[in-house]
Formats: sequence, C-alpha cells, structure tokens
Amino acid sequence: MKIGFIGLGIMGRPMALNLLQGGHQLTVWARRAESMQPLLDAGAQGAASATEAARGVDLVISMVADAPDVAQVMRAVATAATPGLVAVDMSTIAPAAARQIGQALASAGVDFVDAPVSGGEVGAIAGSLSIMAGGSDAAFARALPAFECMGKNIVHVGASGAGQVTKAANQIVTGMGVLAVAEAMAFASKNGVDRSKVREALLGGFAYSKILENHGQRMLDRNFKPGFKSWMHEKDMNIVMQTAHELGLCLPGAAATAQMFNAMVGSGLGEEDSIALLKLLETLSGQADK
Amino acid sequence: MKIGFIGLGIMGRPMALNLLQGGHQLTVWARRAESMQPLLDAGAQGAASATEAARGVDLVISMVADAPDVAQVMRAVATAATPGLVAVDMSTIAPAAARQIGQALASAGVDFVDAPVSGGEVGAIAGSLSIMAGGSDAAFARALPAFECMGKNIVHVGASGAGQVTKAANQIVTGMGVLAVAEAMAFASKNGVDRSKVREALLGGFAYSKILENHGQRMLDRNFKPGFKSWMHEKDMNIVMQTAHELGLCLPGAAATAQMFNAMVGSGLGEEDSIALLKLLETLSGQADK
Repeated sequence: MKIGFIGLGIMGRPMALNLLQGGHQLTVWARRAESMQPLLDAGAQGAASATEAARGVDLVISMVADAPDVAQVMRAVATAATPGLVAVDMSTIAPAAARQIGQALASAGVDFVDAPVSGGEVGAIAGSLSIMAGGSDAAFARALPAFECMGKNIVHVGASGAGQVTKAANQIVTGMGVLAVAEAMAFASKNGVDRSKVREALLGGFAYSKILENHGQRMLDRNFKPGFKSWMHEKDMNIVMQTAHELGLCLPGAAATAQMFNAMVGSGLGEEDSIALLKLLETLSGQADK
Repeated sequence: MKIGFIGLGIMGRPMALNLLQGGHQLTVWARRAESMQPLLDAGAQGAASATEAARGVDLVISMVADAPDVAQVMRAVATAATPGLVAVDMSTIAPAAARQIGQALASAGVDFVDAPVSGGEVGAIAGSLSIMAGGSDAAFARALPAFECMGKNIVHVGASGAGQVTKAANQIVTGMGVLAVAEAMAFASKNGVDRSKVREALLGGFAYSKILENHGQRMLDRNFKPGFKSWMHEKDMNIVMQTAHELGLCLPGAAATAQMFNAMVGSGLGEEDSIALLKLLETLSGQADK
C-alpha cells in the first residue's frame, strides 16, 4: 500500500519504520528535516510538505504533538486529496477536536480515522502498540493492514472520535492507577512497612494490575527514567478534564490525578516518568528520597 | 491444633468452617448465639464468652466489625491467657489500633498477630483469602497452619500493625481502581461510545487490572449485588484517611475516593457493591440508569 507518514518524533519514527518493514511504500514528511533522515536511509521517499506526503497515496497517517498540529496537517492533506483517500491521525488529542477534523476532511472527500495508541516508545519500536480506532468500517478496513504493522491490540471502538474517547478513558485508568500505587507505597513507608512486601501481598489479590506489577517494581527500584513522561500524562489528563467540563461530567478521581500531574510539571518533575508521582508524594509528606 | 474463634458473621462463619474441615479442634463464640449454631452442627464446641473461647487453646482468632470490638474481645482473651497463647485478629481496623491492642496483649503475655484479609465472602467460603499478617516470626509460625486453611496468598509483611497497613494500602489501590473504571465507563457513555468496546480495548494494554476485568464486567452487566458493600469500603477508606491525618501524609487520590464512598453511604447506596460508584457518577452527570 502507498502510505504517507507525517510526524517522525519519538513515536512516529519507529512506527514508520515498522510500516516500511511491513512492505509498504512510504512517503514521509516531518517539520524538522533531520527527523526524516533515518527513514530515507531505510528506503522511504521524502516529501517537501504535508500536502506532498498525501499526494497519490492510499492512506496518510499523522503522528504529531497536539490538536492544532493535527488540524494544520490535515488541512494540508485535504488540499491534496484524491478520491478514496483515507486519513488517520494517531496522535492523542481531544475527542471533540478529532470529530471536528473528521468533519472538515469529510467535506473534502477524505474519510478520517482517529486512532491514538498506548504502549509508549517501547511498544512503538516493538510494533506492539494498543490502537484504539474511531471511524467508518470502510476507512478502518483500509487502515487495518497499516495498523497491523504497528500494533497488536487493535480495536475498532466506534464512529469518529471514539478512538480518542477510548484513549482518554485509558489515561483515566492508567493515571489513577499510577497514583494509587504511589499512594499505597508512600502509605506503607510512612507507616514503617516494607514496600516490596506490601506490593507482593497486593499482587496476589484483587489489587493486581499491570501497573502494580511493572510501574510498582520501577518505583521500588526508584527508576524514574521515562517511559512515559509526566508532562505528557498531564496533557492527556487536561483533555479528560476539558471534555468532562464540556459534557457536565463529574470525575473526582481523574480531577485529583490531573491536579497531581499539574504539580509534577509545576515542581519540575515533568520530564520524569509518571511514576515519579511517588517522589512528589514523598516530598509533600516529608519522606526523604531513598 | 486447639483454636478459639470469636465472631461468626458473613466472613467469620465460613473461615471457622474451613478450620474445622482442616482438622482443627474449634471452640467458637459469637455475640448472637444463633450465629454459633452452624458451627456447633459441624462439630465445634460452643463457649459462653470470649474469655471461655480463649481458655486452654493454642491460638485464638477474632473476626469482628471494628476496632472497639477487637479491643473488647482481646481484653476478654487476656484474662484467660495461658503461657504461649497467640491471638490473631483478622478484622480490618486501623494500624494504630492494632499496634495498641498488640501492646496490651503483650503485657498479658499474649503474642498478637494482625492478619486482615481480602477476597470477601467468596474467598472466605473457598478458603482462598489473601492474608496480610503483622507480628513476630514465632507468632506468625504458630498461626500459619490456621491461615493455610483459610487463605491462599499469605504474606508475613512485618511487625505488629504491618498487616493492617498492607490492608489499608490494598483498599487504596482497589478503591481507586473501582473509581477509575467507573469514571472511564461514565466518560465513554457520556461521549456516546460503547463501554464494552472501551473495556475490551483497555484490557489489552497497561490499563489491565483484575478490577477492570471482573468489576468492569459486572458494571457492564449492571450487577450491583455485593460482593463488597460500599459502606464497608467507606469504613476502610476512613481508616486510610485517619491514618494519613495522624502521619501528615498527603493522599489526594485516596481522599477523592473516600469522599465518593461517603457519598455512596449518604445517597443510600451503602448496601450495594462498591461498583455502584458507577450509578453515583451517572446520577451526578445526568446519565439515565441503563
């Protein structure tokens, strides 16, 4: 399949490489030209603009930072649209923004799929991302062979915007999950109890989660290297809270979690992994770094 | 082993029955005499008081409602203490209360273990409870054969009080976990997206938890039958928040969760399972019961 790929950052680069390895014919574009080099070396075509990356392809994929970037890229894509083009955005943006972009593309004759991912850089490199897709059956079917090069757990959740809704729900559960494990560990230490024993006891019961197992172990190891940076989770929780505001939705746990991620950014921990929430709790409670 | 067992409620009765089936010689006492009948029918001896239940046994176990009950029962046990008696409380109470009770028993020559459980009535009947124990090595070793009749995941976490600290940590993680899944589901519905598809997508990634799998399915089925009653989780979150207050510990996620369980009790949902947090969120957000 001929695929245009726009955005070659930490996530986009390995995703695009996996498309090349899957045998697809790739044209790439990135704002910073030097980001394109590894893809060109691997056999991709370079484009001079987002519009050019979308010209003459079956599928165009964007992986950029935020909703304004997606909107700008997709406006450029729309000007190059040939009949039957499917556009996929895999960035994490607000559901409402995804729906608006989908509508704008529809009026230019482009079928749009919002397909954010989870699994981070590790999953992007391994081609094992979770992909949560929203869009028409036909557009999803067109994108599926590309998704299968990049991810493992691929779910067509519903209509346009449903992928971003699912990603936001994922960030609620993972954000609160990391905070819960961090609070449980801070609670154990402040009570003079061995955190590793507490984790061990909890893993055997209903408290089991992948976060308790993986992130919990990294908390014990005090390995705060990202992984998934706190400022990115802060951005995602802001999407959650903004959507909750627009819909009149009461999410007290997500709200507390969003505030803690705000504090991560505010207190200079934004570049550390989200598990550094533990360090923040320890600072707030007078527990020495150990 | 000769065991005295005090408190034969929803949890205590099946736990005591499992001790009998494990071949132990059981003397039971409960405040309400009719609670004792099923145990007497199964071959246990009946006692006329908590003191009498503790007389001449190797191990005495309590499974009652709250810290004042435990303290009262253990004062009665102390008056019957023979050298080498080990007392185990398996109720969920505050760590500080457990430590105090342990100190009072120590001065009467009784070695104390706090060993709260998780797994609910189902786990108590199946003998598959998680047991989190705090106390001396010798006392834990004495109690272990009894624990093995009642539970599967048995962890000696640390000194006196460590069992209750671990249980509180467990309730932080499970309480926040249930709230997180309920918020994710309310978020999906309010956005017009199929909750079951969202759960399916999340199960495949880092959002996986036993709570998403089991409690999440019960939320989809709208099966709010306990299980674990909301007023009991409210009581446990109060222990967490009271302990946090005493220690100067900042737990924002647990605090939001505790408030939601307060609201469960206040809005008449206390007798329903903790997953009825979903109903509360729906009510607060104007989503019809469906």
